[in-house]
Amino acid sequence: MFAQRGYHATGITELCAANGLGKGALYHYIGSKEELLAAIHDRVMDEVMLGADRVARTKGSPSTQLAELGDELLDVIHRYPDHVWVFLHEFPALTGERSEQFHQRRREYERRVEAVLEAGIDSGEFRAVDPRLTALAWLGMHNYTYLWLKAGGRLSARDVAKPFAEIFIRGIADGPA
Amino acid sequence: MFAQRGYHATGITELCAANGLGKGALYHYIGSKEELLAAIHDRVMDEVMLGADRVARTKGSPSTQLAELGDELLDVIHRYPDHVWVFLHEFPALTGERSEQFHQRRREYERRVEAVLEAGIDSGEFRAVDPRLTALAWLGMHNYTYLWLKAGGRLSARDVAKPFAEIFIRGIADGPA
Repeated sequence: MFAQRGYHATGITELCAANGLGKGALYHYIGSKEELLAAIHDRVMDEVMLGADRVARTKGSPSTQLAELGDELLDVIHRYPDHVWVFLHEFPALTGERSEQFHQRRREYERRVEAVLEAGIDSGEFRAVDPRLTALAWLGMHNYTYLWLKAGGRLSARDVAKPFAEIFIRGIADGPA
Repeated sequence: MFAQRGYHATGITELCAANGLGKGALYHYIGSKEELLAAIHDRVMDEVMLGADRVARTKGSPSTQLAELGDELLDVIHRYPDHVWVFLHEFPALTGERSEQFHQRRREYERRVEAVLEAGIDSGEFRAVDPRLTALAWLGMHNYTYLWLKAGGRLSARDVAKPFAEIFIRGIADGPA
């Protein structure tokens, strides 16, 4: 419902109808509409951070880790299209502590990407790019696939992750332009 | 209002209050809520296509044109943050002919990017990437800046466009990995 109509346009009554639950039962399960929104954000962040942890454990080279981070991220986007839609569109509706926690977790993930870039710059694998701006470029390239990378579509997450990694890693590789 | 609360959650009454207009006057100017949404989409597409036309007229090399397309696109995102937010989030709310026209114009712009990539592949400047997938990578990297590239912010559109072009053009340049 949030993905189709937007968070603010979706009332508790519509959530009840969609879930076949009465108001009492719905509130019992979700607490409040905003808690449901926070849970959707957490689902995405949990998966994304699990992926980042798996990548960190491989202890591959920075190039390999960056490619693996792309694999993991596109896999989440591919598996949770509605969650990701809500995640990317409705985060400004989170308030107070929930908003803070969301921004913190998102920042934590961005730092993982920046750390891989910094490791590659330190090792001489990557040229001296700005880690923050380069992480934002990488995130944009990958996150934006939510608009067209669909489960059951022509392309798998892997079909996209591989050429994207090739563009990006060549793009920041050390060496003459 | 559409950018802050979402299209579906914004009623005509709220638009009237925000504009200090009565309903009759508002309808006179905008026709309908959906026409206003379409006008916002057109404003973005008009600017983006004007930029693409300017780039085409320079007849620069494919690398130069790709960098210029990035300059132009980030300039629009930087100048119209609310329009772009609505453009990227609310296009599914357009219906019928308006939806078709929007998708057509958007596809037209994407084809411009693809054409530059194809010209670069033909001339040997770029390696044999998939033009469609590569255009989507390029668009993602640039469009996604709407989340953090703000007028009055630390970075100008140009500050971002230059390193992005460098990453992307190196990333697809012909030559060994």
